[in-house]
Amino acid sequence: MNIEIKNALTVLQKDDRIDLKKTDVYITGNKIASIGQRPEAFHADKTIEAEGKLLTPGLINAHTHSYMSFMKNCADDLPFMDWLFQRIDPIEQKMTDEDAYWGANLAILEMMKSGTTCFNDMQMNIHMTTRAVKESGMRAVIARGLVGSGNDEAGASRLKQAYEEMEAFRDCDRLRFRLGPHAPYTCDEAFLRIVAEEAEKNGLGIHMHLSESKTELENCKKDYGCTPIVLANRAGLFDHPFVAAHCVQVNDEDLELMKEKNVSVVTCPASNMKLGNGFAPVPKMLEKGINVCLGTDGAASNNSLNLVHEMSLVALVHKGTQESPLPVSANEAFRFVTVNAAKALGLEKEIGSIEEGKKADLVLWDLNRSSFWPVNNPISAFSYSANGTEAVTVIIDGELTMEDGTVLTLDEEKIFAETKSIMERIG
Amino acid sequence: MNIEIKNALTVLQKDDRIDLKKTDVYITGNKIASIGQRPEAFHADKTIEAEGKLLTPGLINAHTHSYMSFMKNCADDLPFMDWLFQRIDPIEQKMTDEDAYWGANLAILEMMKSGTTCFNDMQMNIHMTTRAVKESGMRAVIARGLVGSGNDEAGASRLKQAYEEMEAFRDCDRLRFRLGPHAPYTCDEAFLRIVAEEAEKNGLGIHMHLSESKTELENCKKDYGCTPIVLANRAGLFDHPFVAAHCVQVNDEDLELMKEKNVSVVTCPASNMKLGNGFAPVPKMLEKGINVCLGTDGAASNNSLNLVHEMSLVALVHKGTQESPLPVSANEAFRFVTVNAAKALGLEKEIGSIEEGKKADLVLWDLNRSSFWPVNNPISAFSYSANGTEAVTVIIDGELTMEDGTVLTLDEEKIFAETKSIMERIG
Repeated sequence: MNIEIKNALTVLQKDDRIDLKKTDVYITGNKIASIGQRPEAFHADKTIEAEGKLLTPGLINAHTHSYMSFMKNCADDLPFMDWLFQRIDPIEQKMTDEDAYWGANLAILEMMKSGTTCFNDMQMNIHMTTRAVKESGMRAVIARGLVGSGNDEAGASRLKQAYEEMEAFRDCDRLRFRLGPHAPYTCDEAFLRIVAEEAEKNGLGIHMHLSESKTELENCKKDYGCTPIVLANRAGLFDHPFVAAHCVQVNDEDLELMKEKNVSVVTCPASNMKLGNGFAPVPKMLEKGINVCLGTDGAASNNSLNLVHEMSLVALVHKGTQESPLPVSANEAFRFVTVNAAKALGLEKEIGSIEEGKKADLVLWDLNRSSFWPVNNPISAFSYSANGTEAVTVIIDGELTMEDGTVLTLDEEKIFAETKSIMERIG
Repeated sequence: MNIEIKNALTVLQKDDRIDLKKTDVYITGNKIASIGQRPEAFHADKTIEAEGKLLTPGLINAHTHSYMSFMKNCADDLPFMDWLFQRIDPIEQKMTDEDAYWGANLAILEMMKSGTTCFNDMQMNIHMTTRAVKESGMRAVIARGLVGSGNDEAGASRLKQAYEEMEAFRDCDRLRFRLGPHAPYTCDEAFLRIVAEEAEKNGLGIHMHLSESKTELENCKKDYGCTPIVLANRAGLFDHPFVAAHCVQVNDEDLELMKEKNVSVVTCPASNMKLGNGFAPVPKMLEKGINVCLGTDGAASNNSLNLVHEMSLVALVHKGTQESPLPVSANEAFRFVTVNAAKALGLEKEIGSIEEGKKADLVLWDLNRSSFWPVNNPISAFSYSANGTEAVTVIIDGELTMEDGTVLTLDEEKIFAETKSIMERIG
């Protein structure tokens, strides 16, 4: 389909610069064919008049567990062990594959409605989040969560599932896959080495929780005599494209190593605060030149999947911890969810900015809202005054998935009914 | 007008408990006549079917400067001195009374749309915020910002203006007034004593910025040999109903004194982070039994006036600073913007909870949003997943001011046009 977007205030990014320009954007098939200049012989199947709207690249949620979304607000303000063992774990035990599918659908609905067009997911039920992504028109990078000790059965079977899933969804270009060793406390070093070998053999990137809590750090030091960052590197994981979620408990040497090995960090401020893990040293990461992006984490520990909310957190909390109005800037927060996230996922040539030849993953935001008005600085608005519901129209891979606030590719009523009945059954 | 609200999931508060009950609420004139039981001979002029909606008391924003709302996103990520002297101050210098009026209108629009029905304002242009409140059907407590040294002309003339304004709006019961000495760095001790005498003479409460920054604390110690809290008490201000905004830089003795003197604290997490002032010790305040409420501060330093966003910040950031998932709970955050704020403003017998005989300041929230769904715990949702735009219908003082997302008492288009042209002229 050819789409023409007229007169939107368009966000154009070049290196670290963010410019705004009122222009027209032309989409041919799944790509941005041209900005400003109407391509020769271009026939629009659909024209979107976007006066008074802001056009941005679709936002990228770089760490989540979408299947958990029906658990939102079911376990809050509790000590970590009660949260996990009294509430979350029992629900997960009772959860079926079909439940995970509906959870992922609810998550995709919430993400699309707040301007997210791609997410990096660690999931536990193969074929479920993937199926929801494929059907909904979303874009995602999926890692089947792996746990294992050496070459034990658990690790081997989950690796097998991961490959099965990659094979089953090979035809969908909106889906990419990574290996997802869960964490240093659920995977031992021998298993991590196996994962690194698998990554090497199959040319796969890796998505892993790393250095999230003090307990994890202390146990890792006790078990392996080093930090989780050093352990991951020692096991060979950093020799492959690596996305590390959280990184709250990291020291200067960890950060040096991550920079050297091109590790991308996904900071998850809501989750880190909510579970009492504290604040990741994001300003220091930026000083060192580490590629930082932003994730909501799953709905059991946030409980929102709204990246605009997360941008506000990352722009505000470090000003608090540093007692300075400078770190993290709104422009940086915006790069976290666009160009930086695309780079982290190895998709920087395909998505993350509005450029000719890139995939058409685009969001129109209604500037005529009190949260954006007056339009003094819309990039600043994302961090400091917007709420995410200003996203009105979403295009993913050249397809219109949301128009004027209505998601076209999902059955909202059905998703609401199914997720309600799941929690009535197992919540 | 008599209004009947049917089948809403209704938030009922008793002491520290928050209960949810699906019931009907009957409004006669400006008051809640009955909950559950249809009053005898009740004739509904308006029936609101509220199945699938949550009914809460209207939220109360306990510290803001509404006239500033057109400045949102015009000065971010800047050093404090540049923020103030390069950006905000020049705009304020050029601002007319009429500009302040339109700023207040935009603020009221944003607040109503996110479920706020009352705000505690410190303003600089008399008859402007007050006029906007009176016309819009909002409720507010207004303090004309006072600055002065001893009995100098500035202090005397502003006090005179404050009284003029109280007199001019005496007929509007939705408006109440306080004295608003700006801060210890803009009012000297002799002037603060005058304000305390005026409060005594006229039976007025006080609204003041206190202990916001380290600079303020250090200068106060240098000039007066004590903390701002001790200074305010020494000047006699705490002998009157006192609302202290910010209180970031407070020690244990300050907190003891505030508790002893029944001082209410308005914590403003977004503003305190954004300007680099840090985190107020809210968990300690709660331990000591201080009455804490929540404010957005003005749009120049937030930049949102959305209390749902502020609830999320106050519930999250202290979990970060304390490295514990327990403080501040979602229930506490909800009390900050309802019962606690009503108490701070001396309005606890009139507003802040849904009780028979109280004023009908009520908000209906659409639970059929992905941000609330599934409805596992709606109070938790306010802190952890909602975004404020779920507010659909607002009643203030028994009058319908917003219905199905449309504000009935404000001309949105006119407000947008006026505030845009203000920033084009002076921004």
